[in-house]
Amino acid sequence: MLWEAGQLRLLDQRKLPNEEIYLNFTDAPSVAKAITQMVVRGAPAIGITAAYAVVLAFAQHGDTVTALNNDFDTLASSRPTAVNLFWALERMRGCWQTSKARGEDVLAALTAEALAIHEEDRLACAAMGRLGAGFIAPGSAVYTHCNAGALATGGEGTSLAVVREAHRRGNLRSAFVGETRPWMQGSRLTAWELQREGIPLCISTESGAATLFRSGRVQWVIVGADRITRRGDVANKVGTYPLAVLARHHGVKFMVVAPRSTIDLKLQNGDEIPIEQRPSREVTHYAGQAVAPLGCEAFNPSFDVTPAELIDVLVTESTAIVRPSLERMAPLLEP
Amino acid sequence: MLWEAGQLRLLDQRKLPNEEIYLNFTDAPSVAKAITQMVVRGAPAIGITAAYAVVLAFAQHGDTVTALNNDFDTLASSRPTAVNLFWALERMRGCWQTSKARGEDVLAALTAEALAIHEEDRLACAAMGRLGAGFIAPGSAVYTHCNAGALATGGEGTSLAVVREAHRRGNLRSAFVGETRPWMQGSRLTAWELQREGIPLCISTESGAATLFRSGRVQWVIVGADRITRRGDVANKVGTYPLAVLARHHGVKFMVVAPRSTIDLKLQNGDEIPIEQRPSREVTHYAGQAVAPLGCEAFNPSFDVTPAELIDVLVTESTAIVRPSLERMAPLLEP
Repeated sequence: MLWEAGQLRLLDQRKLPNEEIYLNFTDAPSVAKAITQMVVRGAPAIGITAAYAVVLAFAQHGDTVTALNNDFDTLASSRPTAVNLFWALERMRGCWQTSKARGEDVLAALTAEALAIHEEDRLACAAMGRLGAGFIAPGSAVYTHCNAGALATGGEGTSLAVVREAHRRGNLRSAFVGETRPWMQGSRLTAWELQREGIPLCISTESGAATLFRSGRVQWVIVGADRITRRGDVANKVGTYPLAVLARHHGVKFMVVAPRSTIDLKLQNGDEIPIEQRPSREVTHYAGQAVAPLGCEAFNPSFDVTPAELIDVLVTESTAIVRPSLERMAPLLEP
Repeated sequence: MLWEAGQLRLLDQRKLPNEEIYLNFTDAPSVAKAITQMVVRGAPAIGITAAYAVVLAFAQHGDTVTALNNDFDTLASSRPTAVNLFWALERMRGCWQTSKARGEDVLAALTAEALAIHEEDRLACAAMGRLGAGFIAPGSAVYTHCNAGALATGGEGTSLAVVREAHRRGNLRSAFVGETRPWMQGSRLTAWELQREGIPLCISTESGAATLFRSGRVQWVIVGADRITRRGDVANKVGTYPLAVLARHHGVKFMVVAPRSTIDLKLQNGDEIPIEQRPSREVTHYAGQAVAPLGCEAFNPSFDVTPAELIDVLVTESTAIVRPSLERMAPLLEP
C-alpha cells in the first residue's frame, strides 16, 4: 500500500500476476470494502491499510464523532480473523483521542501515526527475517503457504522475509510455494514476489506437499499468522494446520513468523479465535468459470488453527520462541 | 465409455460439468492420446477403454502382427501408473493369441472379451459397493478424493459405489467432496455424479479437509486406487496420502476401494510403483488463464503412495481386508 498526497493507493492483488493495477481510495468505507473483497490481504497489510483509512475518514469528516465511529466500525467488520486490524484501529483511536485532548493537529497526528505503523512493520519484517534465517542451515529447502510477503506487510514480509534473508545468506537451496486454494495467493503472489528477486522456486498443489516432505526435499515449512493466542496457537490461512501435522509426521520443521501485533492478549486457546467463512463461489468458480455443477455448496473457511504443540519456532520481531507454550510465550505477553 | 456399432464413444471428462460432449474413436492411437490427455481417466475406465481400443486395432489392421503390437505398445505407454491398463492389455493379448490359435473369429472374440471386461467391472463395482457400505454406520459422513465413480469405471464406481450404496441404505449423512487439484476431478466430476442422484454433498478444498476431520464431522475417508502392491501399499491420485496421514491423526477411518485387477502381483512395496509426473502447465494455468507468473515450474506428480499401515479397510469385489498387510492380503494374491 502507498500513501501519496493524502490518498491511499492499493495494488489490486486479485489481478496479479496477470495485471498490475493500482486503485485509489479517499474514504474509509471504500477501503473496508477493498479489504473484504481481498484487493489487499495479509494480516499486517490489513492493519496498515486500516490505519491509513482512519486518516481518510478524518480528512473527510473532520472531528465528527458519529461519522468517525461509523467508519471505525465499518473497518472493524471488514474481516474478522486477523487481529492486526483491530490492533491498528485501537492504536489510531488512541491517537485520535490523545491528540484531540492535547489540542494538537489531529489530522497531522493521525497521518504520522499511520506512517509510523507502516514503518514499524517494515522494520519488524527485517528483524523477523534476520531472526528466522538464523534457523535455516545451508542447503535448506523451504515450503511456504499463502503469501506472507511484501504484498501482505509493510516490508519484506513475515515468512518471506525469512526466505529472502536465507537466500541473501546463501543458505537457501530452493523454495516450494504451495499454491493455496481457493485464492491462489501462493502461485499468484508468492511466486510473483520470489521470481522478481531471482529466488529459485517451484510451485506445488497442497496435495503435493506430503510427497515432498516424505522425499526429504524440504527442511522447513515457513508460514505467517493472522492471530496468535497467549499459549501460541496460531490462526493462519486454511491449509496451514494440515501442513503442520504433515511436517511433524515427516520430521520437517515448522516455523511461524509474525509481528507481535498478531498476538491477541485476550485469547488463551485457538478455539476462541473467530474463523471467517467465505462464500461457496470462491471454491466452485475460477476465473469466471464454473468448476463445479451449479448449486453446489462448498466448505470455505478462510483460516484454520494450528495448536502450539505442532510449532517448532515462533519468530517475532523481538524474539524467537522455540516450541511455544504459555510459559515460553511469557516474554511476548506484556502489553 | 460406450461401445456402439464397432465404435468407441468417450464422454470428454475435461469438459464436465459445463459441457457433455462425446468423442468417437475408430483407431487405437487416437484412444491412447485420449487417455494421455485425460479425456477419460480413472484406473478401471482406462483398462476398459484400452480393451476396446484393441478391438479397434484389430478391426483396422486385421491380424497384422507388427501393426497390432505397435498399437499395444502405444496404448501401454499412454499412462504409467494405473496397472489396470496393463492388466486389460495382457488379457486382450491373451484373447487374440488364443482365439487365433484355435482358428476362431478373432474380431468377434476380442469384442466379446472387451465387453466381458466392461461387464465384469460393472459387477465388481456393485460388489464393492455392498462390501464397503457394510462398514458405514448410520449417520456417517464421508470424505472423497478425486473421482472414483461411474466416470472412472464400468459401473457405479469404486469408492462412489460405496457412497451410493450407503446412501441407498439410508446410512449416509453427507459426502464431502475434495476438489482435487489440479484437474478438479472432485468438484467437476464427483460432485456432478452425486448431485444427479440427489446425494447430499459439500465441496472442500484439499486444505479444508483437516479442519473437517478435527471438527468430528467426517467418519470415513473413502478413495479408489490406481495400483496396489502385495503388502497393500496404494498408489492413488496425489493428495490421497496426506488424507490418510490426517485421517489417522484425527481418528477418522480410511477406506480404499478397488477391483482386484488393481493389485500388481509383481510389486511388494509402494516405492516400486512408477509415479507419473505431468506438465507444470496443469498447475500454473487454469481455464486457459495463468494463475502463476510465466516461466514458473510446478511439482506435479499425478499420484502418491499411501502405505498399508495407514489403511483401515481395503475393499475389493471378493473380500474386504481390515488393516491390510502382506499376510492379510494373501487371499488376494492368487493370480
